[in-house]
Amino acid sequence: MTYQTIIVDIADGIQQITLNRPDRLNAFNAPMMHELIAAFDDADANDDVRAVIVTGAGRAYCAGADLGEGGATFDYAKRPDQMEQGSPIRADGSVDYSHPGVRDGGGRLTLRIFNCKKPVIGAINGPAVGIGLTMTLPMDFRLASETARFGFVFTRRGIVPEAASSWFLPRLVGIGQALDWCYSGRVFDAAEALKGGLVRSLHAPDDLLPAARAFAQEMTAQSAPVSIALTRQMMWRMMGAEHPMIAHRLDSRAIWSRGQSDDAREGVQSFLEKREAAYPNRVSTDFPDFGELLGDPEYR
Amino acid sequence: MTYQTIIVDIADGIQQITLNRPDRLNAFNAPMMHELIAAFDDADANDDVRAVIVTGAGRAYCAGADLGEGGATFDYAKRPDQMEQGSPIRADGSVDYSHPGVRDGGGRLTLRIFNCKKPVIGAINGPAVGIGLTMTLPMDFRLASETARFGFVFTRRGIVPEAASSWFLPRLVGIGQALDWCYSGRVFDAAEALKGGLVRSLHAPDDLLPAARAFAQEMTAQSAPVSIALTRQMMWRMMGAEHPMIAHRLDSRAIWSRGQSDDAREGVQSFLEKREAAYPNRVSTDFPDFGELLGDPEYR
Amino acid sequence: MTYQTIIVDIADGIQQITLNRPDRLNAFNAPMMHELIAAFDDADANDDVRAVIVTGAGRAYCAGADLGEGGATFDYAKRPDQMEQGSPIRADGSVDYSHPGVRDGGGRLTLRIFNCKKPVIGAINGPAVGIGLTMTLPMDFRLASETARFGFVFTRRGIVPEAASSWFLPRLVGIGQALDWCYSGRVFDAAEALKGGLVRSLHAPDDLLPAARAFAQEMTAQSAPVSIALTRQMMWRMMGAEHPMIAHRLDSRAIWSRGQSDDAREGVQSFLEKREAAYPNRVSTDFPDFGELLGDPEYR
Repeated sequence: MTYQTIIVDIADGIQQITLNRPDRLNAFNAPMMHELIAAFDDADANDDVRAVIVTGAGRAYCAGADLGEGGATFDYAKRPDQMEQGSPIRADGSVDYSHPGVRDGGGRLTLRIFNCKKPVIGAINGPAVGIGLTMTLPMDFRLASETARFGFVFTRRGIVPEAASSWFLPRLVGIGQALDWCYSGRVFDAAEALKGGLVRSLHAPDDLLPAARAFAQEMTAQSAPVSIALTRQMMWRMMGAEHPMIAHRLDSRAIWSRGQSDDAREGVQSFLEKREAAYPNRVSTDFPDFGELLGDPEYR
Repeated sequence: MTYQTIIVDIADGIQQITLNRPDRLNAFNAPMMHELIAAFDDADANDDVRAVIVTGAGRAYCAGADLGEGGATFDYAKRPDQMEQGSPIRADGSVDYSHPGVRDGGGRLTLRIFNCKKPVIGAINGPAVGIGLTMTLPMDFRLASETARFGFVFTRRGIVPEAASSWFLPRLVGIGQALDWCYSGRVFDAAEALKGGLVRSLHAPDDLLPAARAFAQEMTAQSAPVSIALTRQMMWRMMGAEHPMIAHRLDSRAIWSRGQSDDAREGVQSFLEKREAAYPNRVSTDFPDFGELLGDPEYR
Repeated sequence: MTYQTIIVDIADGIQQITLNRPDRLNAFNAPMMHELIAAFDDADANDDVRAVIVTGAGRAYCAGADLGEGGATFDYAKRPDQMEQGSPIRADGSVDYSHPGVRDGGGRLTLRIFNCKKPVIGAINGPAVGIGLTMTLPMDFRLASETARFGFVFTRRGIVPEAASSWFLPRLVGIGQALDWCYSGRVFDAAEALKGGLVRSLHAPDDLLPAARAFAQEMTAQSAPVSIALTRQMMWRMMGAEHPMIAHRLDSRAIWSRGQSDDAREGVQSFLEKREAAYPNRVSTDFPDFGELLGDPEYR
């Protein structure tokens, strides 16, 4: 598949997605949203992909929403490019907020990343601002260049944190740190992002991608792919579950069904024989269906 | 409005609430609960208020429930001052726990703070014990004097942590730290509170209020008030949401409606023109109504 | 009661449970699961028990599931010892995942620990791997020997994290740290466990149990046992509650009912008289019934 706003490259089991509008500091727009969602669909469908890395071309990671529309940038009712799903404005002029045309594009992307079956690493090579930053929150890990800068700038644009960041950010860094950054909307440096728990590690600019790739390799090298996929879905989803019984329902099914798998047989036997495992199962064919326990609510 | 148990002062966009029963170490009683709730109502209604600071008069922040009733302090069934909503005791002597007269006063206050539309800072100038401490948990930030002391002393009084602290405290400091402090009920110092993540920063006694006021100013100076109000409500509420789709429903509505606002137009244009923004919208008139997505369950 | 796989010893108000299959590195099997559940039942029923400590005999804490069945270890459909509740396989060969025979044994144990009414400390004296590690997650505190080692090795066995660890682990150490450890399945040392927030403190091997016992004593010495029991249940359960109103419902009932108790009278009076309290109430008889607010969902 050919993309206009991103570059997708697969090597060594890693799908690297590079945001690629360097002349616009990789600013986010509707085509980029669609292409990123498609790239994550590709990653899930391709058993050669063991992990996903997202980074930016040029000196920025992503400068946020493309402000080319000026003061009307976020006035979606007046922007045909934002109305592809039809208009949520009723005949009487009121807004039908349950209409899919109201759906925030950043949230459509972060919910897709939330549902990814491969580990996802953000390699933040430069400024990550607005949706350029909130898009990284459903990724499992954020590694950053020492030259990266960060900003939840929404309150300074008269809007609000989006992309479901109100769900992700307080869980990642705590409510106090989340509110401090989001109230002020100020831009902060990599050291503060590390101290605040937003990023996992800092790297010299040239070392960032090699470090992210090495981390992806080490993390997945000896593990069964279907097990990793289930682990990702179980952990992220149970972050919001009311009671551990919900997790018990889910992992009981997972243990029972994966316990009968060839992966489990190979996993235990290779361990007992002190040799590397060769797991036969594939995410594309062997990821189990547990119905609503791994399902999502509808937008409404 | 004139208060008996607190002092309310508004200056520089900050509403400072001072607990003011210094001869009783600002011990909490029913009038103080009502006055604090009223003061937060005032803060939300007054567009001159950009942030709220709560502190204590004299050497204490708040020594906890007023124990003037001795061993019957918590025996609300025998205290007329605690029965203003009528008695929850049925004719047959059993207790109707869904009766509003059962409602813990500390929780009535913390749920009100939870719903505040302005950033809230606790400036803990001295001992904060029992409800004197749990009342600060729904505040966004706790700054403390180096001389402050802290205690979740409930288990040493034969009662339990209240004011919905079982919801707030583990989310703020982790379940292990929360249980350690609450099981033992011991009083601990400011350094331990900082290390455990309960407070954001420590200050010399005379520097505490200036630091809190400067922090409030910096945090709100360049941000749209309605955006701050929505951010506060979204972040705190989504801490408990089951799935990021709930946040996506909420922030899609917020982005759509605020995106059309004069605040968004001004926010983007001032940014592109590299000048300070002058946001026209006001919390009292422009905070949107998203129905149950920003609503609360009833007490029952 | 006599146990085959564990040793239970009660002294100084502490019930110490020692996993006792040292020749198998205390590997977990079905009898151990049942005996551990019974030991926690004992702890809750015995008012002489103020806290519970779990540790391992010999050089290991628990090496995980007993792999004596080799590659069929997790293929419960083929293991009669795992089918004591009957077979969840329907006549047509499909699996009824709601059948109790599907229930993961590790989860049955961790849900029991979740419901314990006494503080629970894990004293991890050596390797804690697989279920040997996930069984410690619903404990309130994990103290470890400097020689302990840790591994969420599930993905390397072709299965998934179990024992409801997808609910517990991200809440304890954050989603990023949880996924890092669970994706790779690698074994890590005590220093990494401390740094990652998995354990509270490290100790020289000979100091581990004395430190755990001293901690248990200090934490419970001056607190009312029924207050501690309620505190434990309230804090753990409200970790997953959608809204602080749920906590307010629960703690309003708890404050009202305990406020009338002899414990509360003694707690306040002893404080005012500056003497040690002697709480008259007992967990076995005075723990209140708040119906579904302290109830659990069914497995289904």
